[in-house]
Amino acid sequence: MSSRNSNEAEELVSQANDKAQKGHTSKSGKKSAPKKPSKKAEAHIEGASQLGVEVRKEVDFSLWYKQVLKRSEMLEYYEEVSGCYIIRPLAYNIWQEIQNFFDAAIKEMGVEDTYFPMFVSQRQLEREKDHIEGFAPEVAWVTKAGSNTMESPIAIRPTSETVMYPYFAKWIRTHRDLPLKLNQWCNVVRWEFKNPQPFIRTREFLWQEGHTAHFTKEEADTEVYQILELYRQVYEDMLAFPVIKGIKSEKEKFAGGLYTTTLEGFIPTTGRGVQAATSHCLGQNFSKMFDIVIEDPSAPAGPDGKDAKKMYVWQNSWGISTRAIGVMVMVHGDDKGLVLPPRVAATQVVVIPCGITSKTTEDEKKCVEDKINYVVKEMKSSGIKAKADLRENYSPGYKFNHWELKGVPIRLEIGPRDLSKQQTLMVRRDNGVKEPIPLADLTSRISDTLKCIQKDMFDRAKKVYDDHVKLVLKWDDFVPNLDNKNFVLAPWCEEEKCEDSIKEKSTRHNTEQEAEDEKAPSMGAKTLCIPLEQPSDPPIIPGETKCVSCGGLAKRYTLFGRSY
Amino acid sequence: MSSRNSNEAEELVSQANDKAQKGHTSKSGKKSAPKKPSKKAEAHIEGASQLGVEVRKEVDFSLWYKQVLKRSEMLEYYEEVSGCYIIRPLAYNIWQEIQNFFDAAIKEMGVEDTYFPMFVSQRQLEREKDHIEGFAPEVAWVTKAGSNTMESPIAIRPTSETVMYPYFAKWIRTHRDLPLKLNQWCNVVRWEFKNPQPFIRTREFLWQEGHTAHFTKEEADTEVYQILELYRQVYEDMLAFPVIKGIKSEKEKFAGGLYTTTLEGFIPTTGRGVQAATSHCLGQNFSKMFDIVIEDPSAPAGPDGKDAKKMYVWQNSWGISTRAIGVMVMVHGDDKGLVLPPRVAATQVVVIPCGITSKTTEDEKKCVEDKINYVVKEMKSSGIKAKADLRENYSPGYKFNHWELKGVPIRLEIGPRDLSKQQTLMVRRDNGVKEPIPLADLTSRISDTLKCIQKDMFDRAKKVYDDHVKLVLKWDDFVPNLDNKNFVLAPWCEEEKCEDSIKEKSTRHNTEQEAEDEKAPSMGAKTLCIPLEQPSDPPIIPGETKCVSCGGLAKRYTLFGRSY
Repeated sequence: MSSRNSNEAEELVSQANDKAQKGHTSKSGKKSAPKKPSKKAEAHIEGASQLGVEVRKEVDFSLWYKQVLKRSEMLEYYEEVSGCYIIRPLAYNIWQEIQNFFDAAIKEMGVEDTYFPMFVSQRQLEREKDHIEGFAPEVAWVTKAGSNTMESPIAIRPTSETVMYPYFAKWIRTHRDLPLKLNQWCNVVRWEFKNPQPFIRTREFLWQEGHTAHFTKEEADTEVYQILELYRQVYEDMLAFPVIKGIKSEKEKFAGGLYTTTLEGFIPTTGRGVQAATSHCLGQNFSKMFDIVIEDPSAPAGPDGKDAKKMYVWQNSWGISTRAIGVMVMVHGDDKGLVLPPRVAATQVVVIPCGITSKTTEDEKKCVEDKINYVVKEMKSSGIKAKADLRENYSPGYKFNHWELKGVPIRLEIGPRDLSKQQTLMVRRDNGVKEPIPLADLTSRISDTLKCIQKDMFDRAKKVYDDHVKLVLKWDDFVPNLDNKNFVLAPWCEEEKCEDSIKEKSTRHNTEQEAEDEKAPSMGAKTLCIPLEQPSDPPIIPGETKCVSCGGLAKRYTLFGRSY
Repeated sequence: MSSRNSNEAEELVSQANDKAQKGHTSKSGKKSAPKKPSKKAEAHIEGASQLGVEVRKEVDFSLWYKQVLKRSEMLEYYEEVSGCYIIRPLAYNIWQEIQNFFDAAIKEMGVEDTYFPMFVSQRQLEREKDHIEGFAPEVAWVTKAGSNTMESPIAIRPTSETVMYPYFAKWIRTHRDLPLKLNQWCNVVRWEFKNPQPFIRTREFLWQEGHTAHFTKEEADTEVYQILELYRQVYEDMLAFPVIKGIKSEKEKFAGGLYTTTLEGFIPTTGRGVQAATSHCLGQNFSKMFDIVIEDPSAPAGPDGKDAKKMYVWQNSWGISTRAIGVMVMVHGDDKGLVLPPRVAATQVVVIPCGITSKTTEDEKKCVEDKINYVVKEMKSSGIKAKADLRENYSPGYKFNHWELKGVPIRLEIGPRDLSKQQTLMVRRDNGVKEPIPLADLTSRISDTLKCIQKDMFDRAKKVYDDHVKLVLKWDDFVPNLDNKNFVLAPWCEEEKCEDSIKEKSTRHNTEQEAEDEKAPSMGAKTLCIPLEQPSDPPIIPGETKCVSCGGLAKRYTLFGRSY
């Protein structure tokens, strides 16, 4: 497929979306409604304006996602190069929060930050065969500089194993040089031809990639799971996004690695899974390809001229990307827009003056504004990210919508009547609950509520996830559960042939109408992971429990699902 | 010139360097010394090993710079793609310190971080004519993805004006959308064909680029100088690297901008200048090209259907790059290696056990090590970045060299005899001064000394810089001062023709031997900047003071020099 065709295809999709969208904005005037009622029309939210979200999440998820991202000012579509997007401050701030947490945590583990070039020669890129097979179709190539054609094309990193490991070979000489633990925060490019999706599948994205080398497999193993646990903390504790820890099947593991551990998330609205972050043990495969060797300290060079025994190092690589921002939006957002977990919200509390009417005196108005400025200052000095919205030319209602769209966790309303009672009305973004709060207790109550929102958001999402993981023992229950937008947890033989067959057997052959509607995905089920935490009831009985699909002997419960 | 030739030329240079270097390592055994005595041979430091720096900074600056960077483990040469380098943790840590300071400072100013794609279409890139003329010869083009040829090539950003400003046009509608202040930390690519130099001139580099839009020129002007002042703080207060603030000549200003303010630094060893950071006022040039307009609030749309008056916004862009790390090394490093200013040193104090001999008892040894661990902990809890080097298999002398090479500001030596006196020997990296310190006062004395080192390093560098800026009133003194590795500060007419003529007249036509030696650069003098702080003695008398070169009327004193 040529790049041209792909771009055109995307443009058609994009135009179709734009058209649908224009239909919805008919309230604003000139445009007529679409000719025949469609799913898209159903999605329209009564009374919504172009400033807010105009479609229901449950009805047209794909358009809803696009609108939430654009109108909350998290992201802008980049028209110049399809599959690329502009990460705006509201979203970039979340990335910086993730960076701050994760970078400090890995530094505690002795990992050091570094920066390797983004360019890699064809020769180097192709040094590890399985690895390049995994990435080759998506590599972007630089072939010209100024008006000169380069002698040989230079690739832009899709990941940096082949960029870094020649230098690992250079720097690592003895076991005293181990462990070597490096990390970089950078952009990578994977020129995918599948339909792009903001944050979820983009041609350029930001991530961190850790690359480490160890003396023993045990040390490497330990680190793989330490990092996986940090990733879990990013997702569950910061983004309130529940994940399941597991191991990828052989077919789904990192190209060229020994084994891949993963966090698998779930998007309830579509019933689709999403790979949230991966931590790979590369084993000795890359160290053999790149000749990263040390002298075995237990078999040093002998006085008889005998060479020291060589040992290949054990390596890991691990990464988390800006995809995290997208899945957080998908899970928590609602028909009013974003819902941000307090820990990653740039603004946690917005304070809005209310109840100012034509009868309010200038003095009263000033009192309200002074009080608002005072409480904002007070909250800030307690480490709460608070902000006043004192704009003159907007109504309270407009401001409510504005900050709801942007997902600010708490809104405080203060008016002359509240002042006389020495209180403020607190409104939670996540559940809409309103509660008057005495101004005297404000900062402590707000702190507690922010923690409570963080926990509630996670707990709710966790319950939904748990409810959608169905334990299935026989094939007849497999596809119906999938079709009901669930994951399936089933005993599996762990054979690749069986994996392919499950995918084939679970592929829906949709009508055209269904295919258009993302909620009934036609794709087959993949193995998402073999969960670290295995169900105990019923347990897998070795030599007895049967694979859900082929009837062979099952090894472990495996999580299956349709996936992004 | 084709890319191939350029790569070959660099490789020849690199091979020549390697050859020279191999000559120097003759101590280690097999290799013979170079056949005839050369500058390179003179440069060799007696007794130096391959672990440390083997050449004198004053004798072979270019090789010294390369060795210091490589052997201190600041940087690694990237063999795959010439002109690209690996920024290792010791150097990357300095970049992170700069990021932390600068990012916090601009956020205080209301600037928000963002991330735009690295790709830009040819059409977009070429929208501003002067701008693209400045960058076109160095643009890297992606033309293939996987095995597909793209319909039209896509550029990698050399800078992001043309990437960002179409979106400024989209986002800015009224004066209430102003100011818009965005910043991004990213990589950029400028495929230069000049001889690359680590940190100083590299094909990929890291930087921040700020892009802002304002309602009035006054606001834009104010910000240009606020940012320039922050850059000064990065260089002078963090890196102890003195700079001169000034304005670029019309010829040297940013392509497409209105005016460019700059910090100009000085590398005493070569007598060459270096542009340290620039803050540009773009005026309304880009806003006109990209149609970034607002309705003039003083001339809104009339009820008679008259359109509102349009106003173009005023824009700035500003950037500082990883070049900062290189110039810091060039100025402060010495024949023992790096000298790091305390504010950017990842390790500020290293504590080394000394005086352990065969007569030392195990108990005494343990006492020393316990004390070292104790003082390191104590210093750390006071915010001092301290580290113990308790490695068994290395001598104190080896460790001294090791940490001197890495530029650690303070070394503490503790042995059994020091313990009995309750003291430690403190050795300053910047001036070699040794002083016993009572252990009781340790953290306060170390804190004070770190501050003192920071100040002394700046003061020394500042004095050297000041001594090398020569006020010149007549042409006869111009080139001799330049040739003595000085900058020249002279009254100038500010005409481009005269600027070209000065460059031509100050170009040395060196012998081959001289050309090989970087200390006698053959290049002509450029205008570095018109300093904000103008000499007052003698003052420029309008209509009277003559230009140093053409004899026309001088406008201001201008700083001239040979430059990187």
